[in-house]
Amino acid sequence: MEELKIDLGVRSYSVLIGSGILAGAGKILQERGIKGRLLIVTNPTVARYYLKPLQKSLSGAGYDHGVIKIPDGESYKSLRQANRIYDALVAGEYDRKATIVALGGGVIGDLAGFAAATYMRGIGFIQVPTTLLSQVDSSIGGKTAVNHPRGKNMIGAFYQPQLVISDVATFRTLPEREFASGLAEVIKHGIILDENYFRLVSGERENLLSLDPDFLTWVVAGSCVIKARVVEEDEMETGRRAILNFGHTLGHALESVTRYEVYKHGEAIAVGMVAAARIAREHGLLQDKGLPEQLAAVFASFGLPVAVPGLSVQELMAALQVDKKVEYGKLRWVLPRRLGEVVIVDDIPAALVEQVIREMGGAK
Amino acid sequence: MEELKIDLGVRSYSVLIGSGILAGAGKILQERGIKGRLLIVTNPTVARYYLKPLQKSLSGAGYDHGVIKIPDGESYKSLRQANRIYDALVAGEYDRKATIVALGGGVIGDLAGFAAATYMRGIGFIQVPTTLLSQVDSSIGGKTAVNHPRGKNMIGAFYQPQLVISDVATFRTLPEREFASGLAEVIKHGIILDENYFRLVSGERENLLSLDPDFLTWVVAGSCVIKARVVEEDEMETGRRAILNFGHTLGHALESVTRYEVYKHGEAIAVGMVAAARIAREHGLLQDKGLPEQLAAVFASFGLPVAVPGLSVQELMAALQVDKKVEYGKLRWVLPRRLGEVVIVDDIPAALVEQVIREMGGAK
Repeated sequence: MEELKIDLGVRSYSVLIGSGILAGAGKILQERGIKGRLLIVTNPTVARYYLKPLQKSLSGAGYDHGVIKIPDGESYKSLRQANRIYDALVAGEYDRKATIVALGGGVIGDLAGFAAATYMRGIGFIQVPTTLLSQVDSSIGGKTAVNHPRGKNMIGAFYQPQLVISDVATFRTLPEREFASGLAEVIKHGIILDENYFRLVSGERENLLSLDPDFLTWVVAGSCVIKARVVEEDEMETGRRAILNFGHTLGHALESVTRYEVYKHGEAIAVGMVAAARIAREHGLLQDKGLPEQLAAVFASFGLPVAVPGLSVQELMAALQVDKKVEYGKLRWVLPRRLGEVVIVDDIPAALVEQVIREMGGAK
Repeated sequence: MEELKIDLGVRSYSVLIGSGILAGAGKILQERGIKGRLLIVTNPTVARYYLKPLQKSLSGAGYDHGVIKIPDGESYKSLRQANRIYDALVAGEYDRKATIVALGGGVIGDLAGFAAATYMRGIGFIQVPTTLLSQVDSSIGGKTAVNHPRGKNMIGAFYQPQLVISDVATFRTLPEREFASGLAEVIKHGIILDENYFRLVSGERENLLSLDPDFLTWVVAGSCVIKARVVEEDEMETGRRAILNFGHTLGHALESVTRYEVYKHGEAIAVGMVAAARIAREHGLLQDKGLPEQLAAVFASFGLPVAVPGLSVQELMAALQVDKKVEYGKLRWVLPRRLGEVVIVDDIPAALVEQVIREMGGAK
């Protein structure tokens, strides 16, 4: 088991990464002095595999706990479902010393985290992420949120967990598409900050797809280290943290215009990363001119999409404008200069963006 | 104009207190480097008197701003109304650099503050409190919240404003009951930490009720200083800050069982303070045995209630249990030892609480 410390002053916490560690969660919580009652927030899909082992472990360690299940899917990352969690907390008379345990992927983590951040102005929060995407991305950095009908993650809070327990054995029950979606974020971490990590991950297709426990532990820990380094520098995303949004500008717009029903998050940002690389090239920023094609080849090898066939250019351009990355009316792009280095720019002409979307298959 | 600095590290901010300063808000914002678009959140009652002067001042200083009105009343401090603010922000394409300006009393401040804390994980927030209660209480300390049907302030966040503009001239349009409600918090500050302040305020009934601008500026600044001192020591209410909840344990229960329709907040906590003093006496904590009667006399002189005629003891006891001040199942009370000193205790027998409620007029 690897332990990674996220250093955020009084809000510091540990991320534990290993294979089969979920079934020892109760003992882990005990050793780390977690007290009070627990409310597990999960979804039916994840619950089928992991709720019983988790509950058994928590009960074994003497934890009084309840469970609330949220329907599976991004469309349930809503204020309405957050309100269901509040209702469960109030009905169960959970007090300020209670802790929410998020068992599931990014939707569960973001939603449960938002509820934990806002119930009684903040109660305990522990993440047990069960997808590659949530282990390398949403469980690090304290971004919690729900979606607004007109934009992803529009309502949220920065709120750090007390502990993250990342069990890579959970990937065995993960659909292939979900796993590939997580790989998009893994690869993103390499592109923005670490060329070597990018080359090692993208070159080890077989080890990844065979779910080798040691290699997966290394991959997840490596991604978490890269993300943690950025978050530690800029917890509240006032500056540099924005580089983690590489691929997310167009990615969020894609998810939004397709109502979160067509693309997995990682799929949308894979498209977004290829688009960002193309925009960088057109804008004269890219040193390695072949990067867009190189990225597209890697993503495609994992079954990730790299184009936007048939989507309306006009709708995508409109969706870009409501993105959180708009500041003082200017859209902010994270663009690559080369593998391992990105820059943040806000002077990309709309016409250039339109042109790239059209080249990638966007329709009138 | 008095300026009080609230020292909370990177979250520090200034409170400006004076008579007639609301009409100069635009210039004040400009001088303090506030940029971006503004959304004024207010209610129709306050808007009638103060929206136009505020808008004129903001427009004069070149601020692009919108307005959203929330119906007047505690029952609108809800997740539903927070959602209306989100909708307005999204529809108006407000970005991360936008600022919410809360123009109104505590309901508007708490609700608008919660929206500011959670829209895009936190945008700018400025308070222009127009009631005595909100100037001396909710505008200091960064507590934002909405109510849950089963409990006050159950959903919220700690979120500091960038600036507070407290215009004591707004009390001229404040109903007498609202003004008295604010005085309850003013007097509370004296009881918990400053006997002299208590004596000066409670002895100056005429100066208070005649709304003398200089005296009011002194009273508001004095209360803000006391509250700020406590908040600076314990921003997130992990310990000592709880002393500010003096009178609030029973006070919140009173508001809850009467569905926020009978008591103004200050009225409820006036009753709660008298009850706390009685509980302290029964429990053997009170050094000054006459304090309950002394407090009751002062509150009554300002038209504040000091008993609970006819309310169900059973319902009040049940409401106490869902209060945020319950920790590990124990109810926490803030009780006076003497004027200027309170202690926090969690070992008050339910029977004693019941007895005091009954003595104060509670019914079977």
